[in-house]
Amino acid sequence: MDTRHVVIGIDIGGTTTAIGFVDREGVVLAKATLPTQGFEPAEALVLRVCDAVFQLQQDLPQGFRLQGIGIGVPNANHAKGTVENPVNLPGWSGSSDLTGLVRRHFELPVAVTNDANAAAVGELLFGGARGLRDFIVITLGTGLGSGIVVNGELVYGADGSAGELGHTVVDPDGRQCGCGKLGCLETYASASGICRTVGALLAERRDPSPLREVSAAALSSKQVSEAALAGDRIALAAFDRTGRILGMKLADAVAHTSPSAIFLFGGLANAGELILAPTRRYLEHFLFHAYRGTVQVLPSSIDQGSAAVLGAAALIWNELD
Amino acid sequence: MDTRHVVIGIDIGGTTTAIGFVDREGVVLAKATLPTQGFEPAEALVLRVCDAVFQLQQDLPQGFRLQGIGIGVPNANHAKGTVENPVNLPGWSGSSDLTGLVRRHFELPVAVTNDANAAAVGELLFGGARGLRDFIVITLGTGLGSGIVVNGELVYGADGSAGELGHTVVDPDGRQCGCGKLGCLETYASASGICRTVGALLAERRDPSPLREVSAAALSSKQVSEAALAGDRIALAAFDRTGRILGMKLADAVAHTSPSAIFLFGGLANAGELILAPTRRYLEHFLFHAYRGTVQVLPSSIDQGSAAVLGAAALIWNELD
Repeated sequence: MDTRHVVIGIDIGGTTTAIGFVDREGVVLAKATLPTQGFEPAEALVLRVCDAVFQLQQDLPQGFRLQGIGIGVPNANHAKGTVENPVNLPGWSGSSDLTGLVRRHFELPVAVTNDANAAAVGELLFGGARGLRDFIVITLGTGLGSGIVVNGELVYGADGSAGELGHTVVDPDGRQCGCGKLGCLETYASASGICRTVGALLAERRDPSPLREVSAAALSSKQVSEAALAGDRIALAAFDRTGRILGMKLADAVAHTSPSAIFLFGGLANAGELILAPTRRYLEHFLFHAYRGTVQVLPSSIDQGSAAVLGAAALIWNELD
Repeated sequence: MDTRHVVIGIDIGGTTTAIGFVDREGVVLAKATLPTQGFEPAEALVLRVCDAVFQLQQDLPQGFRLQGIGIGVPNANHAKGTVENPVNLPGWSGSSDLTGLVRRHFELPVAVTNDANAAAVGELLFGGARGLRDFIVITLGTGLGSGIVVNGELVYGADGSAGELGHTVVDPDGRQCGCGKLGCLETYASASGICRTVGALLAERRDPSPLREVSAAALSSKQVSEAALAGDRIALAAFDRTGRILGMKLADAVAHTSPSAIFLFGGLANAGELILAPTRRYLEHFLFHAYRGTVQVLPSSIDQGSAAVLGAAALIWNELD
């Protein structure tokens, strides 16, 4: 009987937790999802996750061997193996020793990091960054996450939580951010950010637009994309303005680590060329001359449905390698 | 007879080139300087440098063994060993193969990088960063240079010239930069930047100040420091404004690589607490909460007179190690 080596990738999100058994080639052999209950403590979620893992094992073909567990979760500290005050998991107050909790159930290597770092390792092992030494992955969801790879390795930094480009400053007197600061990049360049920009544009301009019929609370970035594809001026201007700010701050990022590629991933990145084209144009405009023509802006090539689990699995594969 | 291992550190500046024989502990055994002639081609300067090296060798005690040559020079590309269009060396048009030129005269390992990267390696081997894995060195001279160390290694990036924080954007409609862009950090946070800020403050405010008697062309950052120490309000406000912008952009830098320390070096850093105190205060203000309290802002501990040569020597020692 063949022994197939597999790992477990776990993505803990604010509403859903996804679990998958993943081999070294990035094939998802079995997967499951369970609802994340926000006010549940970490111990209780880990217990439910372990139950789900044991159940999933029944579905696997015989002869596999479990090598480790990778976990993507917001506000993770890779160095400590902890999760620190996650805003969208209010039951996990303070610092939760996630690695320790999981290792009560499995005597296996466990690694945790945030979802954007996991996405970067996923891109490195299974996606468009295979073979690249220096690149950045930007996740454009409700917020903006980032994972920075330098010299083939994810940057964790001195405190274990490097790569928070969503909280670099666009304008020190700018939009209120959920983090308590003003003018953070993610208040402009994210699924929620582009909706805020639509609101600002509707206030500034007189162009007729179907977006005037949608409340701020109801507006989604998908609606903005659809309006832009239909030629709506407000929506097109919102993509241009979003690409300008994102391009400007990515030019800053290039001046730090000089990546050969930047991959865009997640909700807003699904708008494709609507967001990629202005981001590329403004990035090039704002780049220091030494870097012009050296950086590609690309869509992630990881299937979005499995990406979170693949990223978490890639994290532990990468450490086992 | 003892064999002492030494390297040659060479710093090529716009007006002066400094050369030193440096051992593994950072002791400068012999040194010399020669004028850099701006319109001289690279070949001619290298020839004069080699003559000076051969002369210096006469002064050395017997029994040393030369291991390699490190060179700090503006616009260097470490990966290629070249210097690309240096603004302050107009005789070196296009791309100069500096490594190749030096290796015509010495069969030794040669490494080149820009002066700020060399300063970072100098801090790592011989200065306050000994034992640190993640830190940044900022040089505040006429411009603003930076060297970023991640996981104990200098970040060169995909194109070999990472770490140009002086050209990150403070304000896309801001001050004209020598690089052709607008609002680059070095137009605010540098010896020349603080002088420009004094000019702006004199225009905005009515405070009496001895700085009103100095022309923009004649003003130096040293004069601004002296005025600030004497309690001049314009000069104090200039340090506060400079520290605010530097602190804000260093908070961005922390969000990239999460260093445990940032070292300030060079002309403006000599102002000591005048620049360190506001930079620390505003850095902490602009930091994303996960990083607060994790980053020290420190003066470089390398002797400024030897720093450039020590940095260049550290570069090659680091690669030989």
